This record gives sequence, C-alpha cells and structure tokens, in this order.
Amino acid sequence: MKVGDLVRRPPLVIHPDSTLLEAVDRLMEHNVGALVVVRREEPDKAVAVLSERDIVRALNMRMALSTPVEAFMSPGVISIEYDQPLSKAAELMWRYNVRHLVVTKEGKLYGVISIRDLIKPESLQAICREGLFHSS
Amino acid sequence: MKVGDLVRRPPLVIHPDSTLLEAVDRLMEHNVGALVVVRREEPDKAVAVLSERDIVRALNMRMALSTPVEAFMSPGVISIEYDQPLSKAAELMWRYNVRHLVVTKEGKLYGVISIRDLIKPESLQAICREGLFHSS
Repeated sequence: MKVGDLVRRPPLVIHPDSTLLEAVDRLMEHNVGALVVVRREEPDKAVAVLSERDIVRALNMRMALSTPVEAFMSPGVISIEYDQPLSKAAELMWRYNVRHLVVTKEGKLYGVISIRDLIKPESLQAICREGLFHSS
Repeated sequence: MKVGDLVRRPPLVIHPDSTLLEAVDRLMEHNVGALVVVRREEPDKAVAVLSERDIVRALNMRMALSTPVEAFMSPGVISIEYDQPLSKAAELMWRYNVRHLVVTKEGKLYGVISIRDLIKPESLQAICREGLFHSS
C-alpha cells in the first residue's frame, strides 16, 4: 500500500481571498479537517494547507470572520509523492507536527491524506509489513 | 508500552460555563488540540472532550464567541484505561472518528492522548510489536 492509495477524492481547495467564515463553512460542509489553498491561476499547486488549528489561531489573534484566508494561513506545504510508503507519511507528520500532507503525483497536487488515514487497521497493517518499525 | 506511558501531563480542563473564546485561548496557550470539560464539583470525571473541530462547528452554527462551552461541546467521552495497549487506542480513535481519547486510571480522569501520540516512531514500533497488525 502506498500513500496514493489513501487518497479518496480530489483535494478540497479554497482561494487566498476567501474569508475565514467561508473556510469554516467549507470544512464543515465536507466534514474534513483541512483545505488546500491554491491560487486561481495555478490550481495544481498547493500554496498552504488550511486546518482547523489555523481557524482557532485566527480567533486567538482576534481576527474578524471576514478576514481573508491568506492573512492567517500558514504558508508552505509538507508534501509527499503518491508512490511513497505509509511509514514515510507518518514520519513527516511526526517531524513537522502536522495532521495533513499534500499528496503530489509527478509534482502536481493530487490529494490530501490525514493522520486519521494512517491509524486505520489496513494502514497500520501496511506500516508494520513495511518492516521499519520491527527492529527495536 | 501502554496507553498511560503516552500521557505527559495532567489533562487541560475547562468548565461548561466557560466561553467559546476562552476555549480558543486555552487551546492556543497550551498548544493542544483538545480540552477536557469537567464540572467544578466533579473534577475527576470528564464530561466531554472539546476539540478544534467543536470550535469550527460552533462558528459554522453562527454561535457568538461568548457562547458557553456546554452549548457546543459534543457530550460523551471515548475513554481508555491507562494499562491498555496502543493498538486498542488506535482502534477506538478509528471506530469513533476522534483524534483524542480520555485516559482513565481506575476509572478516574488521568490524562488525554492524541492521534499524534500514536504515529510517533516509538508508538508505531510498540504497535507493530504487539503483533495484531502482522497477520494479513
């Protein structure tokens, strides 16, 4: 099993000029924990991942619900190619303290996986079969 | 390694009459993804887990930042005893679609573990050593 096998649908995107409240509604509408921020002129390139934590941080900073996404998104993206093993995804999430990774296919935006995808039984089986975590 | 070994500090609690904004500030102050809701008269008993998702849901429902926590918390708690194996914690998080579990010690509130605690390298090693995920 590879990272790409965990991607179940095209990524849910949002634009930098959307508002905090639009981001909230989009997260809830699709029942997801993160959106991919893309510019309209470059839809295949993730600019940021906007997570529930970014929403909470914006409120903590007393931003209005009309604030544009680009004012509170954490720019920069932790990404992984679709043919990588799941243990690599776990390592990246652990090292960079994130719960979502952008999955790319030949460098282009392909999807998003969440930390939840990694703890489902089939994923844990795959990670254990990869063998990296047996040794110590 | 047992679930209790992942608990690093006493649980961060909040009361049902605290506000949405107080919850936001407490989450950010301690850099955590969830708080345990307890009543003042029963500090050893978790009433709910208040997560970043609950904050986003409250905004989606157009609640004011002055709304008390009890109005938007998801009541009920998924909990696990401190001496259980990590694979059991992963199973519960997967089955109940949560990213935090309340850890109890002899039934009393002992701490919280997050899904992130399960994907760190030592945890994955422990889960694979438990052997439940090798068979298929």
